[in-house]
Order: sequence, then structure tokens, then C-alpha cells
Amino acid sequence: MLTEAGCQARRRRLWEQLDENFKWALIADPRHINYFSGFQVQPLSFSGGERCLLLLERDGPATLIGDNFAIRSAATDPFVDREVVEDWYDHEHSVINRDHALVAGLRLVADQLAQRPGLVESEWLPVAAWEVIVGDSTLSGSEPGFPQKIDLGSIVRELRRNKEPDEIELLELCMRAGAAGQTRAREVVVPGISEFEVYREVQAAALQELGSPGLVYGDFRATNAQMPKAGGLPTDYKLQSGDMFILDYSVVLHGYRSDFTNTIAVGGPSDEQEMLYRLCEAAMQAGESRLKAGVAASEVYAAVSHPLEEAGYGRLSHHAGHGIGLAHPEPPILVPDSTDVLRAGDVVTLEPGLYIEGIGGIRIEHNYLILDSGFRRLSDHLISLM
Amino acid sequence: MLTEAGCQARRRRLWEQLDENFKWALIADPRHINYFSGFQVQPLSFSGGERCLLLLERDGPATLIGDNFAIRSAATDPFVDREVVEDWYDHEHSVINRDHALVAGLRLVADQLAQRPGLVESEWLPVAAWEVIVGDSTLSGSEPGFPQKIDLGSIVRELRRNKEPDEIELLELCMRAGAAGQTRAREVVVPGISEFEVYREVQAAALQELGSPGLVYGDFRATNAQMPKAGGLPTDYKLQSGDMFILDYSVVLHGYRSDFTNTIAVGGPSDEQEMLYRLCEAAMQAGESRLKAGVAASEVYAAVSHPLEEAGYGRLSHHAGHGIGLAHPEPPILVPDSTDVLRAGDVVTLEPGLYIEGIGGIRIEHNYLILDSGFRRLSDHLISLM
Repeated sequence: MLTEAGCQARRRRLWEQLDENFKWALIADPRHINYFSGFQVQPLSFSGGERCLLLLERDGPATLIGDNFAIRSAATDPFVDREVVEDWYDHEHSVINRDHALVAGLRLVADQLAQRPGLVESEWLPVAAWEVIVGDSTLSGSEPGFPQKIDLGSIVRELRRNKEPDEIELLELCMRAGAAGQTRAREVVVPGISEFEVYREVQAAALQELGSPGLVYGDFRATNAQMPKAGGLPTDYKLQSGDMFILDYSVVLHGYRSDFTNTIAVGGPSDEQEMLYRLCEAAMQAGESRLKAGVAASEVYAAVSHPLEEAGYGRLSHHAGHGIGLAHPEPPILVPDSTDVLRAGDVVTLEPGLYIEGIGGIRIEHNYLILDSGFRRLSDHLISLM
Repeated sequence: MLTEAGCQARRRRLWEQLDENFKWALIADPRHINYFSGFQVQPLSFSGGERCLLLLERDGPATLIGDNFAIRSAATDPFVDREVVEDWYDHEHSVINRDHALVAGLRLVADQLAQRPGLVESEWLPVAAWEVIVGDSTLSGSEPGFPQKIDLGSIVRELRRNKEPDEIELLELCMRAGAAGQTRAREVVVPGISEFEVYREVQAAALQELGSPGLVYGDFRATNAQMPKAGGLPTDYKLQSGDMFILDYSVVLHGYRSDFTNTIAVGGPSDEQEMLYRLCEAAMQAGESRLKAGVAASEVYAAVSHPLEEAGYGRLSHHAGHGIGLAHPEPPILVPDSTDVLRAGDVVTLEPGLYIEGIGGIRIEHNYLILDSGFRRLSDHLISLM
């Protein structure tokens, strides 16, 4: 779970990035509301998909704004100083348009915003909400003190790269759940079981380890000599001996996610499959040897790709890895022409893969925290063809 | 799945509601994009939570606008005439802010919008997207032809009450999955199993029936004589003999959801628990006797509540039911002071419940399609204490 200390640290880092003239910031991206307050509308609730707003003030309280049911559908208790709750539903009366309740909630604080310089997250704040703020302003757009629409999201996305300890702990919980699913997959995969049956087993085992409902998504697809590349959610296809079954999935809790992979050789690996496995293992080790703050993401890609190229399979056909956290993928992106540079606090994947006609597809993947001194591997599932 | 015929019918009904001067409507609420085009970013994908936009034109094509990965993360193929795809990620270069890709996609069609009267969904369209549209306009806000921000959402919410055949079929698929979960729950509930273990069994059985990954959310909580009222996601609490275990959950596929309930008397029911069950059964029958287009929602509530009041338990302590579809709850709301009136095409729940200290809690629930002649019950799970 995110912690109060973590949320406070993230807010401090935000204010450090913003001109000191700005006294408030209205956060509208649900991921960023979560990031700064720990508040998330539980996606597994009837309020899933509903929205709230988070008002941060430089020298004032953090305020969560929303309808009464969205706020009480919080996945965990939020770290805010006050809640501005607009009644939407009371089990007595007909309901209003739920989006109007959100805008009405904002109206309750709009007069405090209209006369002070502040910032709104313009890629997420609905135009109807913006009008509530400026409609209450006696100033006009060109005067100092008028609220500003800015690209707050890009600033927050930069902050997000540097994971705080609470975020890393949450990611590691997702990773333990993902690993339990991988363990279960190795137990149940036999010729004849369907991709979708394996998915359900993986999901149940992952949630058991997670200790609470969460989301499981990713690639649960068999590949083979004729179709070495496949991705996406599971189908009813029944695994056959000789298939390479790629399990590349994420477990999501409170918006944070793991993302790692193992490939199972159904019915046991052939010599050629073993050879692909050893190449991917070498590629991963080569990538790990470059994981360190200050290293160019393109250099990591080149390192991962090199053993595959040496073996005559050409360049790695997709990213060598990417950042994960509240989104997937997120910077840094480990690709040939990346301009990203690894930073301490990044959490990244390394995921070499080969998809060879006549043999099948394989991908293996781990998750890492980047340090000034190198890396700490966060994921701990067994990578093995059997 | 939604169908092309269904999407076309819903669009026709939208245009009938809009002044004929308006030539386009820019849809931003993800539920409404789904409603009119069948496009939904698969929530169980790495693009879960990302957004697209849908441009509808009165006499022109339907256009889906989004980044390349959001569009290819479609849960099913959308029914649109064209896609305006902004490259966000190519496995070669660093990524831009993904929200910028959405706005950049809109920019590709903005000049077609700026000079023609049209409407945007102001409770959802981000202010940055609005500025792209009006920034391209040579007109000003007071001139005819300038795009208008309106409360398009309230119009669409009205339309949503009248379910088309494809929506009803999708709801029924969710209901069959929910029923399979209820069946599984009756098989596995014994003293000693935890709420969360039952949840995982229910989820696996529901998804098996659904035939694909989907979401399961709701109340999975035991009640008892000391704590007759409880709701929310399951805990590690181990069921005990004498508990009343309320399973009130939804299965969601492509944004549509079932919502029904059964209560299991753990270890077999007592006479008092049986008595509560018979009262709820009578309440449900009383409600069913009123289900018909034209009947006031408050009258249905009164009918459901009456047998409980007669028995001395006072008024039903929550809604007697509500609409379901793309949201939960949605109109009509079956509560004492509701001003809603049932309409043909509404899909509603009936859910009498009693939460009695000294005995425990019980709730039962079915889902119904409202007809001019009465109703068709859509859900078909067994309601039984054992």
C-alpha cells in the first residue's frame, strides 16, 4: 500500500518543480490522484471508472473532491486532509448525472481557487470543470492570479520515475503474486489444457498470494514452429506437446503492477528450444551487466540484443525492456533509438525474446530497481522451460 | 458483444435528440464511446485506463481517435468507419507523454470541426482537447458555427435506459456467468472456508462460463447475529456455521454487467433464517407484480417493502432495485422518493434484504427487462439458502 510518508514526499517533490507563485494544483488524472494521495476508486467496485479530483495546496490541505459513493469506494483510506463530498445517491431519491456531482463538488471549492494563481492538469480536467473555476474568477485570462492550464502531467510523469519506498514495496507485493501465478502455471501446464484454463489457475494463485482481489492481464499465448509469435489474452486453444507457452503478465494492485515472463516448453523442451532459452539467458545477463544509473537505455538494448545477433537471429525484434509502475510501459524505454538514460529509482523490465519459425517463441523477463551502484532485482520467479 | 446494427441504432437515436444544425458530436466518456461504437480499451491490458475519442458526424463517418497502442488494445473490433491513429510507441524510440498522443490525434481532425457547428461532451473532454478544437476556429464563441460544449452526457444517459437487443444479449451473457459463480459458491461454501477463497472459486467459475477474462466485483461478506450488515470485497474471514453469507456481485464484460444476489445459510438455515428468506421471497414477488412500463419506481419500492413492514421489520433499508447496464446503479432508481418511471427497455434489479440483529443478514436479487406488458426475468440463478 502507498503510505502517508510516501504521498507527502511525492507532493514535496511536485512543489519543488513548480514556480513558487503557484499556490495550488488541481490533479485530475486518476493515476496521479493515487500517486499523491493513495486514493483510487476501487476498479473492482460498482464505482469502477468513476472519477474524483485532488486539490493540492502549497501551504494548505490536500482535498479530495468527489461524489459520496466514489469517495466511499476508495480501494484504501486516502491520505488527504479533507474531503469535499457531493451527494449523488442516498437510497431515497432519484440520482442526478453522476458527472454533474463531480463538477458540483468542484464548485464548492472553486471560489478559493479563482483568485489565486494555480495550475490544472489540462490533459485530464474536463472542460466543464475548468469553466467552474474560471467562471468564479473576477480576473481574466491575461491577468496574474488567473488559474493556468498547464501540462502538469508531463511534470508528474518525470517525478514518477523515481520510485519511493512505498511504491517499491507495493510493486514487490505484485511481483510475489505474479511469481505465485508462474509457479502454479508450471504445475498445471500439460498437453491438453487450454490457455484460458491456465489463465484462471494463474489468476486464482496470484490473488491468493496477493491476499486481495486485483487484476491480472497480459500475454497467455502458446507459440509453435508454425506460429512463433502470439500475444494477448488467453484463448480456448489447447496446449500441445512441443508448444512454447509464453506467460508474460502483470498483477495490478492499487494501480501498481509487476510485469514479468516465463516460457514453458509444453511436454518438455527440444534441443532447439533449449538453445533459444540459453540465448535469452545470455541476453538477460548482458542486459543486467549494464543496469546502472547514468547508462543510456539504448546501450542496454544493444547489450541485450547482441547475443541474439551473434547467434544469427538478427536484432531483438521488440524493446529490451521498459519502465513500469502506474503505467505500462513508461520511461525509460530500452529500445535502439531511445534517448532515455537510466536513473536511480527507475523500475524497469528486461525481456529478451526470440520467435523463430520452425522452433517457436520464447521470452523471459525480470523486473529491476535501478541504483547508483547497479541494480536490485525485484522479481524472483523461476525462469525455466519446465 | 455489441453489434454494428446496435451501434447504428444508438447513433440514430442520438441524432434524433440533437438539433439538426449540429453536424458532429465528439464523444469522450469511455462508456459512451463503447455505447456508440463497441470500442473499449481492454481493461485487462497494459492500456487499461487509457482513453480514445469518438467523432460522430450526422452525415459522415464515425471516427475513432487515439494512440496506436490504445486502439490496438480494443477489447473487440470497433464499428467505426475510420481510425485516426497517432503513433505513441514504436519499439524503436523513447515515448512521448501518452496523453499528448491523444490530443495530437484530435489535432488531425480539428480543422474539420472548427468551422462547423458541433457538440463536445463537456463533462469528459479534457480542456486541452477543447483548446485544440477552438484554437483551429476562425470563429469566436458567440458566432454560429462555433463548436458548443454541452451536457451531451445527460442526453446519452437517457438513451442508455432503452437497451437494444445486442445490449440485452451481452447482459444475459454476464448473467449466465454470474449464475455459474453462484452455483460454484453453493458447492464450496462450508464452515471454515474464507470469504476470499469463495471469491476466487466464484471468479474462476464465472470466467469459465463467460469464456473470456472479465471482471468480478461486489459484496462477498458473511453476516451473523452480531453483525447482520456487511458489504464489500471478501476478507480472510472464515465462514462459520450459522453465518448468512451474502453473495451480491457483478460480472462485467465489455463494460456491461449483471448484478444479482443469493444468500447462503452456512451449515444450513435456522427457522428464523428461513423466515427471513420467505419474507424476502414475498417482497420480490410483490415487486415483480409491479414491474411494467409506466409504473412509478417509488411504487415498486413500496410494493417490495410492504411485506417486510407487515412483518414488523420496518421499511426496506436500501433501494428495492435500480437500473444496470454500462453503470451501476443507473436510472431508474427504485427508492421511496424516486421520481423515475419504468420504461420499456429498462434493465433493473429487484433486491429485497433484511439485516436483523440476533439472526443475520439476507439479500436476494434478480435482474429484469421491463416490457410494455410487464417484464422478462433475465437472470436465472437459484435463490436458495442452501
